[in-house]
Amino acid sequence: METVYLDHISATPLHPEVKRVIIDHISHSFGNPVSQHRVGDAALEALEGAREEVARLINANPEEVVFTSGGTESINHAIKGVALARAKKGNHIITSNIEHNAVLKSLRMLERMGYRVTSVPVDEFGLVDPDGVKKAITDETILVSIMHANNEIGTIEPIAEIGRITRERNIPFHCDAVVSAGVVPVDVEEMGIDLLSIAANQFYGPSGVGALYIRPKTEIWPLLDGGMQEGSRRGGTHNMAGIVGMGKAAELARKEMPQRMEHLLQLKKAFIDGLGLIEDVLLNGHPTQSLPNLASISVSYVEGESMVLLLDEEGICVSTRSACASGSLRASHVLLSIGRDYAEAQGTLLFSFGMTNTLGEVERALETLKEVVATLRNISPLYRKEG
Amino acid sequence: METVYLDHISATPLHPEVKRVIIDHISHSFGNPVSQHRVGDAALEALEGAREEVARLINANPEEVVFTSGGTESINHAIKGVALARAKKGNHIITSNIEHNAVLKSLRMLERMGYRVTSVPVDEFGLVDPDGVKKAITDETILVSIMHANNEIGTIEPIAEIGRITRERNIPFHCDAVVSAGVVPVDVEEMGIDLLSIAANQFYGPSGVGALYIRPKTEIWPLLDGGMQEGSRRGGTHNMAGIVGMGKAAELARKEMPQRMEHLLQLKKAFIDGLGLIEDVLLNGHPTQSLPNLASISVSYVEGESMVLLLDEEGICVSTRSACASGSLRASHVLLSIGRDYAEAQGTLLFSFGMTNTLGEVERALETLKEVVATLRNISPLYRKEG
Repeated sequence: METVYLDHISATPLHPEVKRVIIDHISHSFGNPVSQHRVGDAALEALEGAREEVARLINANPEEVVFTSGGTESINHAIKGVALARAKKGNHIITSNIEHNAVLKSLRMLERMGYRVTSVPVDEFGLVDPDGVKKAITDETILVSIMHANNEIGTIEPIAEIGRITRERNIPFHCDAVVSAGVVPVDVEEMGIDLLSIAANQFYGPSGVGALYIRPKTEIWPLLDGGMQEGSRRGGTHNMAGIVGMGKAAELARKEMPQRMEHLLQLKKAFIDGLGLIEDVLLNGHPTQSLPNLASISVSYVEGESMVLLLDEEGICVSTRSACASGSLRASHVLLSIGRDYAEAQGTLLFSFGMTNTLGEVERALETLKEVVATLRNISPLYRKEG
Repeated sequence: METVYLDHISATPLHPEVKRVIIDHISHSFGNPVSQHRVGDAALEALEGAREEVARLINANPEEVVFTSGGTESINHAIKGVALARAKKGNHIITSNIEHNAVLKSLRMLERMGYRVTSVPVDEFGLVDPDGVKKAITDETILVSIMHANNEIGTIEPIAEIGRITRERNIPFHCDAVVSAGVVPVDVEEMGIDLLSIAANQFYGPSGVGALYIRPKTEIWPLLDGGMQEGSRRGGTHNMAGIVGMGKAAELARKEMPQRMEHLLQLKKAFIDGLGLIEDVLLNGHPTQSLPNLASISVSYVEGESMVLLLDEEGICVSTRSACASGSLRASHVLLSIGRDYAEAQGTLLFSFGMTNTLGEVERALETLKEVVATLRNISPLYRKEG
């Protein structure tokens, strides 16, 4: 039985070209790019080539890109780094109700240190109201952090509008673009973003490598204090294999984005159209303003974890929620924020599509899902079959 | 002309076996170990296998090992994480004069937040006096951070003695073992260590991956807040290729350590014996209590940077100091701390040996060094040839 992998939001496979450059890199090179001899020079060239490609993906200048160990580090760096550097100017931070745990927990840590956080609500589609952000701003506000696309429901936020507001008020604006960068267009200029977090493993690059875009003159402390790497903004010896892979993945994502998006939208449409076969299923997130590769559904009367396990037995790999929240027994804060009740939140599945998925795989996933749901509902005390 | 790489303290090449497991991993696997399906299961198995090997290297239990993006992250996590978590118990931290920049700058950041730091001095060999640490302890002391081996002069500190003192006083003890773990024996039990920072690229593993040992019940906050990975101690998707490589490198380091140490000591001895050919050269660090793979020398009347460049032209790769400090124009704080003057510090070179270096390479390096020093002294206004 062939595995049908529909969990690209947790991890994308390496693009064959990315795999090639990583293997090539580790086969021929090992130097430290900060060394001053020939072995270091080769590493430096590879490092800066990758930086240029990441910069191009988000319409930034290479020197504004800091390599990190992934989206979580980028987010922690942006939020804690700005909050600590600007502590004398105020102690208030604005975010939304549906951010990733890396944002929420970084803010919780800051709250324990005395910062105040305002969390603006979202509507039933998960949309942040830019006007809500505007109204939340006080003279003490030192940072606004709103995600680009939500990792559980796919909704894409009106970032450019929020960016206009923060720019007007001269407040640094961090945008968590971990699940959107490399998938849909991201432009730090057009969107008025001062800090942008991205991760390579969302666009067929390696896991454990990411970047933080930092607009020049942004007041920010390092998260990783140490050596003079990355313009003294992030100490630590570079993960060269990961960075080289991220550079290639960024290049391919930029070049192939229109075709990839078209393919993904086709798969997503087929999936959503096919859901009609199953009763009592709700689609989560905005119907159009959303990621092309993610469909979140809440299936009544069944548990998400049970569906994942039975689907896995049939070779279909999906997830119940953000991979980073795996192991948590709590209902998703994102789903509760858009008005789902506890049971609906617990019956939620994420189907996330990738470049190599086919319409046939989507069809098989739908058929299997239908069977799995029927099996589970048959043994569910909550489910009363009518008629 | 064959390159002679004598800069292992900046980066070690991948062990062929490590290279093989990384290539094998990225060729066949890509899952996220926290996913709940078959693709994730394979990644989880690889992750936990690597964790066991890292634990065995330092005599720890696997669940006490947290994977990080390298030595710098581990150090930042240990120092900032303990300082923030224990803020209510005190605000005083003890360290030494010769720590790595990741330690010094993390502490500087904490000082800006109101913490107080006592830096104990070292003797002419770079040795910390355990009694000095003991005397520096106050009722406010919440952390002691002393490195195992110094990355610029190689001196190995009396960690077990310091560990006995901190344990007696119930103060968490962080040890930066970045350049020693995997090179010489490290045992968190015998040494009384509560937090230990290590990096794979010091023992033929990949760069950009490391670990932090955390003794159970140590009060510490995460540095990377986010998902529930690593027992909620470190959020972020794992750098699986790096971690798998680190696991294999740790296994090999443990098994091959006696032979490697013998080989390295032989190379180091040959190098030091051969230095007699060059006038006015000082050896830095402790003559015996030191790393087997590092020799630091201060060459009078010449600049380290010039020697690195001329040696590089002849195919000999060395460095002037910690790679992380490359680009800094300041004299090394380590060399000044052991009593070298500014000129001596600026005339310092690090020769760091590796598994594949040969006695012939050491001989060639010495001969080339002799020529390079003669060339530079001939044009140096500081050098007056006598006789």
